[in-house]
Amino acid sequence: MEFKISKDLILELKQHIANNHDKELESLLNDMHHADIAEVLDELDFDEATYIFKVLDSEQTAEILLELEDDLRENILSRLSPKEIAEELDELDTNDAADIIAELSQDLKAEVISELQDVEHAKDIVDLLRYDEDTAGGLMGKELVKVNENWNVLTCVKEMRIQAENVSRVHSIYVVDDENRLKGRLSLKDLLTTSTKTHISDVYIRKLNWVKVDDKDVEVARIMQKYDLEAIPVVDELGRLVGRITIDDIVDVIKEEAEKDYQLAAGITQDVETNDSVLELTKARLPWLLIGMVIELIASIVLKGNEDAFRKYETLIIFVPLLSATAGNIGVQASAIVVQGLANGSLKEFSRVYFSKEVSVAMISGTIISLLLLGYHSAMYQQYLVGLAISISMLVVILFAATLGTLVPLFLHKNKIDPAIATGPFITTANDIFGIILYFAVAKMILGI
Amino acid sequence: MEFKISKDLILELKQHIANNHDKELESLLNDMHHADIAEVLDELDFDEATYIFKVLDSEQTAEILLELEDDLRENILSRLSPKEIAEELDELDTNDAADIIAELSQDLKAEVISELQDVEHAKDIVDLLRYDEDTAGGLMGKELVKVNENWNVLTCVKEMRIQAENVSRVHSIYVVDDENRLKGRLSLKDLLTTSTKTHISDVYIRKLNWVKVDDKDVEVARIMQKYDLEAIPVVDELGRLVGRITIDDIVDVIKEEAEKDYQLAAGITQDVETNDSVLELTKARLPWLLIGMVIELIASIVLKGNEDAFRKYETLIIFVPLLSATAGNIGVQASAIVVQGLANGSLKEFSRVYFSKEVSVAMISGTIISLLLLGYHSAMYQQYLVGLAISISMLVVILFAATLGTLVPLFLHKNKIDPAIATGPFITTANDIFGIILYFAVAKMILGI
Repeated sequence: MEFKISKDLILELKQHIANNHDKELESLLNDMHHADIAEVLDELDFDEATYIFKVLDSEQTAEILLELEDDLRENILSRLSPKEIAEELDELDTNDAADIIAELSQDLKAEVISELQDVEHAKDIVDLLRYDEDTAGGLMGKELVKVNENWNVLTCVKEMRIQAENVSRVHSIYVVDDENRLKGRLSLKDLLTTSTKTHISDVYIRKLNWVKVDDKDVEVARIMQKYDLEAIPVVDELGRLVGRITIDDIVDVIKEEAEKDYQLAAGITQDVETNDSVLELTKARLPWLLIGMVIELIASIVLKGNEDAFRKYETLIIFVPLLSATAGNIGVQASAIVVQGLANGSLKEFSRVYFSKEVSVAMISGTIISLLLLGYHSAMYQQYLVGLAISISMLVVILFAATLGTLVPLFLHKNKIDPAIATGPFITTANDIFGIILYFAVAKMILGI
Repeated sequence: MEFKISKDLILELKQHIANNHDKELESLLNDMHHADIAEVLDELDFDEATYIFKVLDSEQTAEILLELEDDLRENILSRLSPKEIAEELDELDTNDAADIIAELSQDLKAEVISELQDVEHAKDIVDLLRYDEDTAGGLMGKELVKVNENWNVLTCVKEMRIQAENVSRVHSIYVVDDENRLKGRLSLKDLLTTSTKTHISDVYIRKLNWVKVDDKDVEVARIMQKYDLEAIPVVDELGRLVGRITIDDIVDVIKEEAEKDYQLAAGITQDVETNDSVLELTKARLPWLLIGMVIELIASIVLKGNEDAFRKYETLIIFVPLLSATAGNIGVQASAIVVQGLANGSLKEFSRVYFSKEVSVAMISGTIISLLLLGYHSAMYQQYLVGLAISISMLVVILFAATLGTLVPLFLHKNKIDPAIATGPFITTANDIFGIILYFAVAKMILGI
C-alpha cells in the first residue's frame, strides 16, 4: 500500500495555492505521510512549495524538511528566519536536526542554535555537530532510554516512561553505571515478561555490541548487518554512553556506499542524480572522459608505431576492437569480484588461492575465445599463421588483463584507496594500452616482423 | 567492538577437534556470537566444522546455520538426519526455518517437516513455503504480537506477555478485528505511557503501512525505506494479517539488489563470490565475454570494409581505440544515471526534460573532447581536414552513444527487463559497432571518399 502522486492532486494544490485556500490545503495534506508530502513538494515550483510549507504546522514540516531534495530544502530554508528554522529543529531528533544545521552557513548556524527553545535538545545538537559526518558520532542520535544498573525494575519502568516521552522509537534499554559507562542492555521482551520487583543488575544482558564515536560509518554498517542489529549504542573514549545509531540511518549508509561503487564503476566521480543540473552532471562525468581520452591518445601513438605490421598483415588491425573489448570486459569482471570480496569481507588481502583461481578462469575463457577466433580467422581470411599469431596474442592479453584486474583493486585497498575506482574506466583504458602493446609485440614476434 | 578471527584461535580449535576435547571446544565457543562462530567454521574444513557443529547445542547451532556460507551449510545439513535438522529448525524463526527447508530436496523436505515438534511452528513454516522467494510472502515471518481491537489495555498486556514469549523482537503491536483483518497498530511508546484501563479501540493508530503477500521484495524495500519502517505487516487478499517483514531482511534485499546491479554493470551474469569454484566463476563470466566477442567480430568486418579509407588517411584508424573508449565511457555513464534514477524513483519513464539535459551534457563534453582532439591531431599530423573529419565524427559518435545509453535502459525498463543490463558490456560493445560505423561514415563524407 503506497501513495502515488496524481496529476490531479498536483493541479488541485496549485489552484488552492493560487487562490490562497489555506484551509483546503491543510485538509488535503494533513492526513498524508510527511514522505509523501515531500514527494508532492518536489513536483511544485519553489514558491508554491514554500507556500505550502508555511501553511502546515511545524511538527509536520520538520519531518518534511528531512525528506526533501537538497536544492528544495536549501531554497525553503533560505526563506525562513533563524527563529523559524529553530522551530523546525525543535521538533526533530537530535541527529536529524544536527544534519540540517550542518548545511547552514557559519553565521546562520549560531543564530539558529541561539533560537532553539529546548536547552537540553540544543546542547545535544551542538554536541553532535562536533563529529565527522562519516563516523559513528556523525550518525548517532542522543534519543535513547537508559537505566542505572542499581535500580530495580519498578524504578526503571517509571524512569523509562519519562524518558520514552522524548524518544519516538524505543529500540533497546541501555544499562549504565553511576559514571554513565555502558554496562549492558535490557531487552523489550524482558520488560514485558519480567516481574517489577526484580533488580536490574540481576536481569540485564552483559553481552552487547557497541561502537566508538570515531568508528567509520561503513564499519558500523558492517557490524550492524553482521549481528542483525536494529540499534547500536555509541560510547566515547572512556566507555561512556553518548548516543545510539538506528538501522534506518545505516540503510542510508549501505545505499550510498552501493551507489558510490556503482557510479565509480560507471566512471562518474561525484554523486549525481537525474534531477541535477547539466553543469553538475557534466562536472561529475567530464573528468573520466578526459582521462580516458588522454590515455587513449597513447593508444593512437602505439598503433601509429605498428603501422608497418598492420600494413603488411591487414587483419592485425581489424581485430583491435575485439581485443580491447575482451581485455576490458575480463579486467572489469576480475576487478568487480575482488571489489565485492573486499567489501563483504570474503577477501581481505592478496590471496594466492584466489589469484590462481582467477588465472585459471582467464586461462579457460581465454583459450575458448582464442580458439574460436582462430577458427573464424582461418575461415574468413585463410592466413593461418596470421590467425595463429592473433589468437596467441589474444590469449596473452586476456591473461594480462585478468591479472591487472585482480591486482589493481588489491593494491589500491592496501594503500587505503577505494578499490572500486579500479572497476571504472581506469582499468578498461589501462588494459587497452597495455593490451594493444602486448598484442602487437607478441604477434610481431610470431610473424617474425 | 567486533570479533576478529585469529590464526591462534583456529589452530587451537583444530587441535581440540583432533583430540576430541569437546569440553574445551564448548567453553571456547559458548560465549561467542553465532555470527562469529559461523565465520570461524568457514575457516575450517567440512569435517572439522561438522564436528564442532555437533558439539554445540541446537539453540546455538540453529542460528549458526543461518550465517554459514551456502556450500558449508549444504555440507553440514547433508550429514544430519531429518530429525536433527528438524531440531535445528524448531529453534528458528519461521521465515529462517522456511528458507532452510526450501534448500532441501523434495523428499527430505517432507521428512524434516514431519519431525518438527512444535505443531503451530510447523504449520507456519509450511504456510510460508507456498510463497515465492522474491515476494513479501517469501520474506515475511509469522512471529508477531497482535491484539484485538475489542480488548482493553490490561487484557492486551496480559495477552502480549504470552505472545512475546515466542517473539524474539517486538517491533509493533498490530491491532486486528474478530476476523483477523488488520486495523492498525499500537506503538511501544503507547504501551509504556498509556494507562492500563484504556480501551484499545480508543488508542490504536489507524494510519499504518502494510504490503500484500504477493508484492515484490524490491517494492517492499522501497516502501520501508521511504517511510523509515523497522517492520511492516503483511496482509492477504482479504486484508487479513498473515505475517510481518523486518528491516534486517530488507537490508539483505537492498544489498543483494545493489550487488546484482554492480555485477551486471561488470558483465557478470550470476551472483558469484571470491570463494566460488573456478567452474562457477567461469560460467558466470564467459557468456558476456562470448557475446562481446561475437559483436566485436562485426567490428572487424566494418573495419575491413573501410580499409580503403584508412589506407588513404592513415590517422583515421589509429584513433579508433579512442573513439571506442570515449563512446563506451559516455554511454555507460548515461545508462548508470538512468538506472539509478529508475531504482530510486527520481525517474519513472522517458522524460523530455531529462533527455534534453543528457543531450546537453553530451554536447558540452563532446565539443570539449573534439576540440582537444582537433588540436592534438593538427599538432601531431598537420592534416587539418583529416583532423576536422575525425573530430566531427567523434562528436557525432559521442552524441549517439549518450542517446543510446539513455534510451536503452528506459526501453528495457518499459518492457519489464532489468535496466541494469544496459550498463554492462552490452551498451559498450553496441556503442563500439555503431560508433565505428558512424565514425567512418561521417569521416568519409567530410573527406569526400
